[in-house]
Amino acid sequence: MKAVKIGLLGLGTVGSGVIAVLKRNADEITRRAGREIVVVAAAVRDLSKPRDIDSSDIKLTEDAFSVVDDPEIDVVVELIGGDGIALDAVNRALDNGKHVVTANKALIALHGNQVFKKAQSKGLVVAFESAVAGGIPIIKSIREGLSANRIEWLAGIINGTSNYILTQMSEGGRDFDDVLAEAQALGYAEADPAFDIEGTDAAHKLTILASIAFGISLQFSKVYQEGITNIASEDIAYAREFGYRIKHLGLARMTDEGVELRVHPTLIPEARLIANVNDVMNAVLVQGDAVGPTLYYGAGAGSEPTASAVVADLVDVVRAITTDPENRVPHLAFQPDTLSDLEILPISEVRTAYYLRMSVINRPGVLAAITEIFGDKGISIATISQKDSGEDEQRVSIVLLTQNTREGYLTDAIEQIEQLDTVYGSVVRLRVESLS
Amino acid sequence: MKAVKIGLLGLGTVGSGVIAVLKRNADEITRRAGREIVVVAAAVRDLSKPRDIDSSDIKLTEDAFSVVDDPEIDVVVELIGGDGIALDAVNRALDNGKHVVTANKALIALHGNQVFKKAQSKGLVVAFESAVAGGIPIIKSIREGLSANRIEWLAGIINGTSNYILTQMSEGGRDFDDVLAEAQALGYAEADPAFDIEGTDAAHKLTILASIAFGISLQFSKVYQEGITNIASEDIAYAREFGYRIKHLGLARMTDEGVELRVHPTLIPEARLIANVNDVMNAVLVQGDAVGPTLYYGAGAGSEPTASAVVADLVDVVRAITTDPENRVPHLAFQPDTLSDLEILPISEVRTAYYLRMSVINRPGVLAAITEIFGDKGISIATISQKDSGEDEQRVSIVLLTQNTREGYLTDAIEQIEQLDTVYGSVVRLRVESLS
Repeated sequence: MKAVKIGLLGLGTVGSGVIAVLKRNADEITRRAGREIVVVAAAVRDLSKPRDIDSSDIKLTEDAFSVVDDPEIDVVVELIGGDGIALDAVNRALDNGKHVVTANKALIALHGNQVFKKAQSKGLVVAFESAVAGGIPIIKSIREGLSANRIEWLAGIINGTSNYILTQMSEGGRDFDDVLAEAQALGYAEADPAFDIEGTDAAHKLTILASIAFGISLQFSKVYQEGITNIASEDIAYAREFGYRIKHLGLARMTDEGVELRVHPTLIPEARLIANVNDVMNAVLVQGDAVGPTLYYGAGAGSEPTASAVVADLVDVVRAITTDPENRVPHLAFQPDTLSDLEILPISEVRTAYYLRMSVINRPGVLAAITEIFGDKGISIATISQKDSGEDEQRVSIVLLTQNTREGYLTDAIEQIEQLDTVYGSVVRLRVESLS
Repeated sequence: MKAVKIGLLGLGTVGSGVIAVLKRNADEITRRAGREIVVVAAAVRDLSKPRDIDSSDIKLTEDAFSVVDDPEIDVVVELIGGDGIALDAVNRALDNGKHVVTANKALIALHGNQVFKKAQSKGLVVAFESAVAGGIPIIKSIREGLSANRIEWLAGIINGTSNYILTQMSEGGRDFDDVLAEAQALGYAEADPAFDIEGTDAAHKLTILASIAFGISLQFSKVYQEGITNIASEDIAYAREFGYRIKHLGLARMTDEGVELRVHPTLIPEARLIANVNDVMNAVLVQGDAVGPTLYYGAGAGSEPTASAVVADLVDVVRAITTDPENRVPHLAFQPDTLSDLEILPISEVRTAYYLRMSVINRPGVLAAITEIFGDKGISIATISQKDSGEDEQRVSIVLLTQNTREGYLTDAIEQIEQLDTVYGSVVRLRVESLS
């Protein structure tokens, strides 16, 4: 069969990986795909920049649109990122009748509904396996591998930077700022790390996972988002004492009241496999009603792991070229006219368990006042424990785990507790999930 | 679109699960597949047997061939097992122009080369996701999700019965026979457990995984096979002291000398995620050259987990009905005319590390004689440790870990050691894999 010709937009970390993998494993990939996949053109930011990879047989340009408009090209691979030029280029590629592969989670999470509609109307494919959890074939696994299931919930470690920082804090007892600086030096965190450590990157990915799991449209604006910037090393240590690890999770759950979509640090029992996924590795735990729990683990970022998913998408797209468009795997797993508009629950209506830490005056009766507030709100305490606060004998820390409750009730209780004269400052609140 | 009509062969544990899942999740599955999937006929062993499931809208028969010959049926699901009637029925279904879904690992491992050739020649699909690791979409993940990679090796806990027994022995310090009896009472082991505990079931599955990973034809007869029947609780305990868990693994590795295909109990470092996969759960660790390590975890057996994979295959097959047969995912991942005939290494040429335990006379000089034999064979010892043998003061156990060596050298060393007057009985030998 005729070779399939690819145009790359972006030749940074992932783009170089795509070229390296396509060249090194050309034989393997052709034996699988049934035809050659060849990069013929690439748009770069700066033509004069020296490159590690051999691009002698590739037309290089600084104009992304010239690649998108090139009639020789069958499939456009978008690796620019963001939703500026990248979005314009993807839309124009579709207008030009070209299939698209993209690693761009922001583009899919924010504009996927529109992009997929356009692709659908033109009988084209937009593949995005690499947009979530790097090299792990999680989109394929949920969308195709678990197609028999009603997905009940999923929970993922889907931001490698956050997982690296939490792992290092947990294993070395080190502080957030210290580990962040190290992660930046190692290249695991960006110079401006906000996107990762404040949870936006994970929220983009969770938006996508929830859509393909539940058959709902992409609704990034409804995701509750909390990052890891407020995690103190003492919370990690106390969580360990209770038998938990703190992981930054993306959680999506189907409940009778609506869909939960939330990204936040979470205490999970140390016995769970996912509690032992460390450093920059990613994992997604998916609970299906027929299959039960399944877990998918691997590298969530990096040049070749991400390229692995991009090239797998290319092989899929190449196969799809001759298929009946009506009979392909739908972009969001469910046929577009059957996507439902389920309510996304506000965080105040989510039900889960909590870890709380507060600093109080060390004298009798303080605990009684606090537990009375929980009792009034109908919140049951699972464990409560008093900890020395170090130097100051006047103060102690109270650390507790609640049973499941509605977040709104807990927020009310915390507000009342913070108003007590015997309580210093604000109460630390982390969510606890059993993941079973 | 028109509903797709299914004929089931076999209505036992998995068949009932398939009907239950297709009914309960009919809406979900139709929203994904784009059309209804309906079971219209089923062949059972005994029509008079009472059934838990509602089969009022299904034609029941005791004649599998009447289902296979039924012109109304689009896809045949083979759940009979074994390679007698099942093989005849699958071949006849293909002759009749019907696609096939099967959960039958023996059929695929032993006759897949012939069956796929027939299917290929007729433009039909034989799907077999449920044949390996139950509900885990491992075939899809390797065959499609990792299509960019040269797979370097894979290691799987792919027999739930063996994993349950080893987990219970490990956690309770109990003996093999005791746990086996319990597993049989719980339904985790068959009345005749040989197929599971002697490694044949795992060898069938490994045969399939290795083919789709490396692009080689199915070669069950070349798999080295060892079960768990000789694992003693003291070996589990000593392995733990060294920081290892003992798991029954299927291992396939591509080396410069040839392909390793082996199924045996294995010591793996306790820090590996897969070392913590317990009870009846399955997991497969796959190392790709681009993606690095990835792991897939879930239920490896049971009614609905297996049905989850069968139904996912049905959705795939339904989609494939209108695709260009030349452009489908090949049965064994690689285009059939590119399957290679790589040499499968005999176990004597495999290189790995070893755990050995031997019972010796408790007197000076014994250790020197043993270590001299290893030295002569060029085998380096990583750790050696002497253990009290309990009651008998005359005897001690020597437990040791070797560095990587060729199995043939180790076998020679063991033969010489067993001939020493100071050594009682035979030497226990287990393989050690770092899985990194």
